[in-house]
Amino acid sequence: MRSKALTDLSGLCLHTITTRPWNIEQAAKYYASAGVKGITVWRDTLEGRNIAHTGKMLRDHNLTIVSLCRGGFFACKDRLKRQNALDDNRRAVEEAFELGTNKLVLVCGADPLQSLNESRKQIYDGIAAIVPEANAAGVQLAIEPLHPMYADTRSAINTLKQANDMAESLNSSTVGVAVDVYHLWWDPDLEREIARCGRQGHLFAFHISDWKTPQTDMLMDRGLMGEGCIPLRKIRAWVESAGFSGFNEVEIFSNIYWQEDQSGFLDKIIKAYRVYA
Amino acid sequence: MRSKALTDLSGLCLHTITTRPWNIEQAAKYYASAGVKGITVWRDTLEGRNIAHTGKMLRDHNLTIVSLCRGGFFACKDRLKRQNALDDNRRAVEEAFELGTNKLVLVCGADPLQSLNESRKQIYDGIAAIVPEANAAGVQLAIEPLHPMYADTRSAINTLKQANDMAESLNSSTVGVAVDVYHLWWDPDLEREIARCGRQGHLFAFHISDWKTPQTDMLMDRGLMGEGCIPLRKIRAWVESAGFSGFNEVEIFSNIYWQEDQSGFLDKIIKAYRVYA
Repeated sequence: MRSKALTDLSGLCLHTITTRPWNIEQAAKYYASAGVKGITVWRDTLEGRNIAHTGKMLRDHNLTIVSLCRGGFFACKDRLKRQNALDDNRRAVEEAFELGTNKLVLVCGADPLQSLNESRKQIYDGIAAIVPEANAAGVQLAIEPLHPMYADTRSAINTLKQANDMAESLNSSTVGVAVDVYHLWWDPDLEREIARCGRQGHLFAFHISDWKTPQTDMLMDRGLMGEGCIPLRKIRAWVESAGFSGFNEVEIFSNIYWQEDQSGFLDKIIKAYRVYA
Repeated sequence: MRSKALTDLSGLCLHTITTRPWNIEQAAKYYASAGVKGITVWRDTLEGRNIAHTGKMLRDHNLTIVSLCRGGFFACKDRLKRQNALDDNRRAVEEAFELGTNKLVLVCGADPLQSLNESRKQIYDGIAAIVPEANAAGVQLAIEPLHPMYADTRSAINTLKQANDMAESLNSSTVGVAVDVYHLWWDPDLEREIARCGRQGHLFAFHISDWKTPQTDMLMDRGLMGEGCIPLRKIRAWVESAGFSGFNEVEIFSNIYWQEDQSGFLDKIIKAYRVYA
């Protein structure tokens, strides 16, 4: 089963990191005039700004603020750094609230100086610790499993099954999962775990991009939809069958695209979205 | 549980690719004089040589020829290329026989132009097709699951569970699995799947190296044991508990180490083996 092509842009959201050279005001203006309906805000774009005013500015452009990116990095051998991470996550929850979004994406962290199991325990404890604040602020926490090639420093949660296990174990309506095709496309259990995620009410977000062949950089060389081998239309069908009706969030880190004129890149994104997403 | 340090070199095998600048004659001479007991031969080192004579040369250096690397690359959208891959695998089986090793390692292949499921079917069919020849030649086929970051072009078999499933499904004493810590260290199911692999009599090979942070290249920047975050001693304990008593095969692809004097690098490998493997 594959989903149909997306005939309109009503489900299109861009992550501000995708057009990194633009500040948040430029992103708002250009996204809105291109017909983009949603925006996921990366925290670096809020620096030096009044967050509540920025949220209003985005809504004045008729943009839905889909989520704030990102909290997390709970796993750390150093106890003081773990404490600092908790403080930072509490600030991120406040920022999401001030901005006016109901979702915070969590890149959970990993530390090559300790075992993955230890990191996983710290992630569990870290999320559990901020659930009360998140709950009070009406901000949902989306655990994003990351590709296994990031298991050394970025996340010890590397499959959707692990994210589902953790979300179910935390057992709070505040905690769910963000499914990103770049991280998960290779997983033979993906269809089943997406269905499970939806069934549990945990499918909070859906991130899209593509996996290019070859990749020149392990972090900053993601492809535009259609440029790579990810069966995006098929995965979107699974996500929709699982009950997801939220935005398709374009999240592309690319040293190549960031060097281009961003208006031209935005055109390419929209064309790729219509044809390949 | 962790295994003890390796007090002698009786279990040490090197892949010729690890000291790529050396030809097979140099590798044999220097490995043997350093006390290395096993060698896994990469096929490129056999070019232009009489294979049976080369096998004798290696045995004359008191080296056990642990395996031949590598067959595989069964998955391909193009039918003619798939046929060529089968022919090449039959040649590889013959080469293993002539060389005098009883194992051929399979990097199974993937093609970004088709789905992973299609690639997996072609891998199954490809292995099944060469089992009779392998069986007749007394050459065991070791399916090596590769890291998910290679799922686009190198292998659609990306977890030990998948390799175990395939080996069990092929149901032949000729077909088993090669466990490589670089590819599998991140997997939350690793301990369980290693135990299963051993229980089924499918644990044919054990490859070691390390995962560095950061890595400058997705293919050619593996670390020496101890340079990274792989819990090598713990994984070796799992492998040994599963009944494995074969060689610990050092397989390091490294643009950095290949630029060094290889005799100095060999000393480093042996020190790292004693302390960290």
